[in-house]
This record gives sequence, C-alpha cells and structure tokens, in this order.
Amino acid sequence: MASTTNHTPPLLDLTIDNITENVVRINSQSSNARLNYLMERLVTHVHDFARETRLSTHEWMATIEFLTKTGQMCTDVRQEFILLSDILGLSMLVDSIDHPKPPNCTEGSVLGPFHTGDAPHLPIGSSMSTDAAGEPMLALCTVSDSSGRPISGVKVDIWETDSSGHYDVQYESRESPSERCVMTSDVDGGFWFKAIKPVSYPIPDDGPVGKLLQLLNRHCWRPSHMHFMFEKQGLDPLITTLFIRGDKYETSDVVFGVKSSLIIDLGKVDEETAAKYGVPVGALLLKHKFVLASTEETEKLRDKNAMEAMERLGLKTKLIDHLPVPDLD
Amino acid sequence: MASTTNHTPPLLDLTIDNITENVVRINSQSSNARLNYLMERLVTHVHDFARETRLSTHEWMATIEFLTKTGQMCTDVRQEFILLSDILGLSMLVDSIDHPKPPNCTEGSVLGPFHTGDAPHLPIGSSMSTDAAGEPMLALCTVSDSSGRPISGVKVDIWETDSSGHYDVQYESRESPSERCVMTSDVDGGFWFKAIKPVSYPIPDDGPVGKLLQLLNRHCWRPSHMHFMFEKQGLDPLITTLFIRGDKYETSDVVFGVKSSLIIDLGKVDEETAAKYGVPVGALLLKHKFVLASTEETEKLRDKNAMEAMERLGLKTKLIDHLPVPDLD
Repeated sequence: MASTTNHTPPLLDLTIDNITENVVRINSQSSNARLNYLMERLVTHVHDFARETRLSTHEWMATIEFLTKTGQMCTDVRQEFILLSDILGLSMLVDSIDHPKPPNCTEGSVLGPFHTGDAPHLPIGSSMSTDAAGEPMLALCTVSDSSGRPISGVKVDIWETDSSGHYDVQYESRESPSERCVMTSDVDGGFWFKAIKPVSYPIPDDGPVGKLLQLLNRHCWRPSHMHFMFEKQGLDPLITTLFIRGDKYETSDVVFGVKSSLIIDLGKVDEETAAKYGVPVGALLLKHKFVLASTEETEKLRDKNAMEAMERLGLKTKLIDHLPVPDLD
Repeated sequence: MASTTNHTPPLLDLTIDNITENVVRINSQSSNARLNYLMERLVTHVHDFARETRLSTHEWMATIEFLTKTGQMCTDVRQEFILLSDILGLSMLVDSIDHPKPPNCTEGSVLGPFHTGDAPHLPIGSSMSTDAAGEPMLALCTVSDSSGRPISGVKVDIWETDSSGHYDVQYESRESPSERCVMTSDVDGGFWFKAIKPVSYPIPDDGPVGKLLQLLNRHCWRPSHMHFMFEKQGLDPLITTLFIRGDKYETSDVVFGVKSSLIIDLGKVDEETAAKYGVPVGALLLKHKFVLASTEETEKLRDKNAMEAMERLGLKTKLIDHLPVPDLD
C-alpha cells in the first residue's frame, strides 16, 4: 500500500509476479496521500487486467493506437475521451459516487461531451432555440431545496439537440451557440423558456469510440432528452437530464444515463398558458420541479457512503477532504 | 461473464452496485469471444477502480484532460501513450507475458517510444552512428537458437542515443535517421557494426507523462543502453536491450526494463581486433551472443504459463489462438 517514505527498492529483474508491488512502491513517494492511493489502485488494476487476460503485444499496441486516436479526435468542441468514459458507464458511475442524492432530490445523469462554456446568458422567458423546423415546446421549471423552499439566483445551464438530432458544436460552420443558454432562477425559484422538442440521436460515431461500438455490436443512440446543470454557492452542483417518455431508446441509452425519475411526460399548452407565456395553444409543455441538495447534505451523504463502501470492500481507509486514503494508523 | 447472445437487459436506473454487470452484458454481444472477455475485464477493473477510490468528478475530469493531452502529444515520431505504459510498468509486464523465454534464451525488455520504421538497412560492418562526439564502440554479435545453432538471415533492428542522450527523432531538424540501422545476420549468425557508447538519458519530460513523474516525485532517467529487435520467420520476435554495467540508474530505470542478464561489460579493442575490423586500438568493445526462441518454443511456454496463471487466479478459461477466453462449457 501507499507509503510516504523515500526508500525505493532496487528495480531489477522484475517479473510478472513481482512487478506490481515494485511499481506501486516507486509510485508512493509523493507527499500527497490521495495521489499515492490513486496510483496504487490504478497500477494494481492495470496490471491485473494484463495478467487476467494474458494481454498480447498485438492487443497492447492496438490499445495504444486506440487511445492515441481518441486523444487526437478531441478538439475545443469535441471530447472523445468523455464519450469513451460515457459508453463504458464510467461517467454515470462517477456521478453516482460523487453526487449522491438525498431522498426527494432530483437524480443526476451524465454531463456528456456537448456542454460548452460559451452559452449566452438569456433573460427568463427567452427562446433558446433558433431552429424553425423544431416542434415548439414551452418549459416551465422551478428549483427548490430538499425542504421545498424555492431557491433564487441559481445559474441554470440548458442544452439540447436541434430538430435533426445535432448539437450546435457538431456543425463545422458553427459561428455562435444555439440550442443552449444559461438562465438564473427568479425570486420564486422559477425559470421558463421557449425551446423545441429534443429528438433521439446517435452519438458521434465517426471516431474511435464509434468504431468500438460497432465492434461490440452496440447501437450508438441516446433517447431524446434535454440537459440541465445547476450551480449556486452552498448547493451541490446538479448535472442532470430530462428524458421524453416513450422514446425507442429509453431502455438502451448508449451512455447509461436514463433514470425512471428523470423520464417526463410532455403536456399541451392550454389557452390560459398560451396567453400568459406568449406561445401557441397546443404547443408542447414541459413542466418540472428540480430539487437540489445543499453542499452540506451531499457531503454528509458522500462521506457516509464512502466509509460504508470501503468497509464492505475490506479496505482500511480514512477520509481526507471527503476522499479515501489508506488509514495506516 | 461474456455471452454471445443478443439479449440485453433494460438499461435503466443503474446504480453504483448494478451498473457494472449491466455494462458488461451489453458489451458481450460481439461474436468475438476474446473481445468480449477483454471488455468484461476492462469494464470490471475501471469500475472497481472508481468504486475503490470513490473517484471524484474533479479527479475524473483531470484524468480526461491528462489522457487528451497525452494523445495530442503523439506524433509520427513521438508516442506519449507508450511512454505512459512504460512508466507504469505495463510495457514490461506485457512483454513478459507475451514473450516468455525458455531457459538460456536472451531475455526481453521494453520497446520504448523511439523505434522507427525508417532505419536504413546497412551491410554488416557499417557504422550506424554519425556522431563524432560519441565514444567509438565496436559491436561484435551473434544470433543462435536455443540449441546454440547459428541463425542466418535474421533481421536485426538496432537503435541508440547519440552522445548527448537523444534519439534522432527528438530533434525537430531531423531529416534522416541516425544512430539506428537494420542489419541481417550472416551465414554464421554473426553481425557486427561500428557505433558509439550509448549514454543514460531522461525520457522526454516536457509532456503529460513528464508532469506525472514530477508529481510522483520520480526521476525520469534510463541507464545507458542499446536497443535490439530480432525478426525472422519461425522465430519468436525478440525485443531487447543491452545495458552498460555501472550506470548510475542501473537499479532505478524509469521504465523498469533492466534485467541482470542484459547488463554487459564493455571491453577494449586489442591490436588484432583493431586490424581485423578497421577500428582504433583501445576503442570500446561490445561482444554479445543473442539466443532466440522459436515461435513453437515460445507458444508452448506461453500456453503453459497462461493456463497455470488462469488456474491460480481461479478463472475458468480455455485458449483460442493462444489467448484465454471464458470456458463456458
């Protein structure tokens, strides 16, 4: 296990059976106990993977090439490694671990590779879509805390596909953001906007991740959904997604993001609502109440889950900054 | 474990505790049993890593960024992912697994990131170095099989640093290969060439891997060495390295490549040798006999090692094309 001494063993004549303990020891010289622990677990799993599969030089080289191409596919607006993490279920798992939700709070889902930092901040009531071919949808939402109290001043990032199932960043001709915006919840915790109905779409399949899915005989589709990200001092950041019920891919999302509590039914705008919000009668209506945990609630739950999980795994750890490190005392 | 049926479970409401089995199942739809097994082990280890460390979103994002930069550091002449594999001991481990050596055969070592495909084929007796500042060294080598019979017609790739500790590909101004060549062993299994004494050197530390080593409080040096790669139909390819005895980094090679049997003593060229090979009296002399296993010898040993290892690990596998897959019968 990790150690903070500077003593390193002579690294010579390493074999299949003793290389792991030696690599772990030389990677345990940092004064950062968390880093040492991450490296110890990483090296152990990577080596165990090679031993349990008797990984061949040919397969190793194919992996090197795959990782290289994955990195080289990344640009400012395309993140192929996040896509890889998504289709391996890692993204969903990490969100579940790091952002556990107290009862009644809105569940989380994957960030995905299409969030950008350049979405315009729009006033409540704005239209976030410029796609005339989309099916108009009015969204009326609120944010509250776990006791039901409205929270004002929450920064809400919202992004969705256009009517053809593409995000703006997937167009080479993109000059400015579209189908995305940032809003701030009002004094009653409310925010509303005009959008279009999102549609199901294939994740980008022209890169290494797409080729891997093909090899694995997997489809590359996500059910139709709209992304939301909430941030405010004192709140645990919530990254989540609302899914439109009845989508063909509802139970086979390629990135494992669907949760029953996040599947919603769309209604229709009635006359009164149409008049109030300035949208056509009969337009689609998305109504949702988001419930956010406080930083304190989440940290408490995360710590409890972590200690229980470590105990179940038989690992003797303590928490530093809410993250496990070996407990050597 | 892997399955070849097309039945997939509904992927909904996945939790920390059930996500792995579900991701494994959906990744088991290929008709390639080996691919299914590799994916099953990969997903299990990646998820276990996240669970055992309670990996945070912040750490996950730092890893995504690290992998992205590592891929983007790669060029035709720089392979940062191989470097990463090297410093984690994975490259050495994979070579040990895939190319086990029968008794008396020359042991293997890491390929490293500096092999190229463009080394010139030189006649035996050529000089492979153009570096006038290097310490001249005559290398007299032979290749034989495990019974001591000389092997002619073996393609031998040889590469080393220049006198400043750099490979040719590390110079942006590189126009043609230097300090590297390909030779073919003669009828007596011999090959000889003029070179320079290789020197210890830091692996490239201006990229993500160098930064990781710094974080880990590790040095980035390799002891002085010369690379050799042997190929001929019917022989198991040998990738190995000869290390010059007494180097400061002999027992702390950053890529874990040193084996006692590969550490050699340099001699001095005497008058007779000087006259015979056309080199100065007193020049350094490297003499080495390489012993190569046949494809058949290696496969037999690899299969035996694999089955024994799988049994020790409690994994019920059979070999297809000499590689384990689950034995479901």
